[in-house]
Amino acid sequence: MSIITLMTDFGIKDGNVGVMKGVIWKIAPQVQIADLSHLIQPQNVREAALILARAVPYFPDGTIHVVVVDPGVGTERRPIAAQLGSQRIVGPDNGFITLALEHAEREGASLEIVLLDWPAYWLPEVSHVFHGRDIFAPAAAHLANGVPLQSLGTPIRAPVRLKLPHPEPTPIGLRGEVIHIDHFGNIASNIYREHLNDAYDVTVHLHGIVLNGLVKTFGERRPGELVALYGSTGNLIIAEVNGNAAQRLSVKVGDVIEVEGLQAES
Amino acid sequence: MSIITLMTDFGIKDGNVGVMKGVIWKIAPQVQIADLSHLIQPQNVREAALILARAVPYFPDGTIHVVVVDPGVGTERRPIAAQLGSQRIVGPDNGFITLALEHAEREGASLEIVLLDWPAYWLPEVSHVFHGRDIFAPAAAHLANGVPLQSLGTPIRAPVRLKLPHPEPTPIGLRGEVIHIDHFGNIASNIYREHLNDAYDVTVHLHGIVLNGLVKTFGERRPGELVALYGSTGNLIIAEVNGNAAQRLSVKVGDVIEVEGLQAES
Amino acid sequence: MSIITLMTDFGIKDGNVGVMKGVIWKIAPQVQIADLSHLIQPQNVREAALILARAVPYFPDGTIHVVVVDPGVGTERRPIAAQLGSQRIVGPDNGFITLALEHAEREGASLEIVLLDWPAYWLPEVSHVFHGRDIFAPAAAHLANGVPLQSLGTPIRAPVRLKLPHPEPTPIGLRGEVIHIDHFGNIASNIYREHLNDAYDVTVHLHGIVLNGLVKTFGERRPGELVALYGSTGNLIIAEVNGNAAQRLSVKVGDVIEVEGLQAES
Repeated sequence: MSIITLMTDFGIKDGNVGVMKGVIWKIAPQVQIADLSHLIQPQNVREAALILARAVPYFPDGTIHVVVVDPGVGTERRPIAAQLGSQRIVGPDNGFITLALEHAEREGASLEIVLLDWPAYWLPEVSHVFHGRDIFAPAAAHLANGVPLQSLGTPIRAPVRLKLPHPEPTPIGLRGEVIHIDHFGNIASNIYREHLNDAYDVTVHLHGIVLNGLVKTFGERRPGELVALYGSTGNLIIAEVNGNAAQRLSVKVGDVIEVEGLQAES
Repeated sequence: MSIITLMTDFGIKDGNVGVMKGVIWKIAPQVQIADLSHLIQPQNVREAALILARAVPYFPDGTIHVVVVDPGVGTERRPIAAQLGSQRIVGPDNGFITLALEHAEREGASLEIVLLDWPAYWLPEVSHVFHGRDIFAPAAAHLANGVPLQSLGTPIRAPVRLKLPHPEPTPIGLRGEVIHIDHFGNIASNIYREHLNDAYDVTVHLHGIVLNGLVKTFGERRPGELVALYGSTGNLIIAEVNGNAAQRLSVKVGDVIEVEGLQAES
Repeated sequence: MSIITLMTDFGIKDGNVGVMKGVIWKIAPQVQIADLSHLIQPQNVREAALILARAVPYFPDGTIHVVVVDPGVGTERRPIAAQLGSQRIVGPDNGFITLALEHAEREGASLEIVLLDWPAYWLPEVSHVFHGRDIFAPAAAHLANGVPLQSLGTPIRAPVRLKLPHPEPTPIGLRGEVIHIDHFGNIASNIYREHLNDAYDVTVHLHGIVLNGLVKTFGERRPGELVALYGSTGNLIIAEVNGNAAQRLSVKVGDVIEVEGLQAES
């Protein structure tokens, strides 16, 4: 039983995601389909990259992830498909693959990327505005049917990569930034456990707020208190216990977050 | 593997769509289910008709589409099921089927419509307020199990049809209207490629804005520019590149859109 | 074909629900998964309890319901799994199970509840903040694979129960409260058909509004009128025909609703 996941910025009211499922099942009726998110901020390729990279490790070998956040639809930007270790990824070559690719490279996984330039694996008619339906869904379905990646098009070596912000050292510690705000209003930074040597006795600064020390989990503090902790994928997050920290602090993606009090690694 | 799609105005927070899936799987455990949309504007049968007609052609033969946008639940309005060529459709007889039916008629597809008046194919208890659960989901599941359409109830010839606005000729061209605004704020009209003889050198008027010429795709203009183009189902749409045209222009469904500069068909 | 349903307060934009599906399919690839709701109000265990209890009876025997509305994640609160008659339920021991459990008790169903304290059925690494992914999804998947409930952990007798408001008699009738407001703005109370002896000739008071008599269905009144009726699970609801009663009356969960004119049961 093959699995295809879908992530788009299409929203869920217009039926376009459903149409992609119809296209997939017409070609590959045996496939299970899961929605990853269809509420990526419109055209926000960076958000798609982040959510994809967090999700991929939890899916079975052979899963195919279709990502259509595609500000360049109908232009020169190229459609691609990739095999990163045991997972496959399909979408526009605009950098959404960056974090998943970096992860695969760190793991030493086998990598293979092709342009989707072989029309036999598209729908017969391709519109200028809905490649999710006309190119990416069919390509994923053919992969699920066992068509080898190489058959879908020409191999390429260098897909587009996003320049993503990395935390930088400061005289007193580390300066990072907010990279995601989740449904609960929890504020995620690009500072990871590794950057902090797993420390809990650090001080976090955000929007004039100072948090002394990290907690292990929300429940160590009372509802309404602000806490800093490591999130479920290892990055430093700021949260309000049973509340919405991002709203309370008027924080948005890109805001600066600083950590001080790091010990030199021994 | 049978497929059932679900479209409702139930929203996604109250569990009602999940309950319909439970009902379907209790009767037909082998079925795959896809959500088309559950954010149809409450009671907006016309929006359901539009999204259904756009989706149907992309699903495999034999797919069953359940549509429950049902302002008349519990009244005299009748539940129906239809076979339109290779696709099947189930829902209240309130006109949601209009566009899918017109499409099937244009294609010369075989048509068959029945009232769902045979209670053996409903749930044992039928409420006055949730026929999606009590009548439509069970009917769809029985169809998926191979029960013939004729067994579900009495044949009828004339289901309710919506009176949908068609574009009208003007001294200088064509006057249509806005029929849908999508998640991105793209503005879709009831003027189709066929009405314009596939022309690109026309002028489009909407809310005092004048757009000279159509583009093929968003990427031909810069972010922030307004463009007119043919959408993925062939209708004329107005969009802001990487922006929200409907918000920017305060456009709503029903607003007038005019096209001038049409050449006489040769 | 086993079925797992998912209900959370995670929202649908961050990919976390998708990750739970990946975890489930990695362990139990044959499972069908349905979303019940992911828009439970954050940390609102009572709302989860209500929606779960309404949904359970409509799912096939053997269905496994995973509920992760979990204000206490990472604290002493315990993860549990339960067999209530033919249905299975997995989630944090915070009372979300209360109404489903009461229902099962009334039906005389067999009951069995265990702590999920056997780490062999968790993911190898368990975070402090995402037990939906690390404990509950894997437990549900192992159940779907046929692992007996008893293998997942230690039996317990008394799970946490919510104290839920019950309607109380008044000199003139019954006083209840608003327990849910749905997507349409329909206002649901904790007063059920049984409390009113199925009466229709009662008077309902809410926020200074007086409704004389219940209707059977929305269609008996014109669009825009307020009506009281029995909802699809038998509780008294107040609605505006084709409108949003909760917005119109500024009603919220917890507001008082009173019924007068009850006949003594004969």
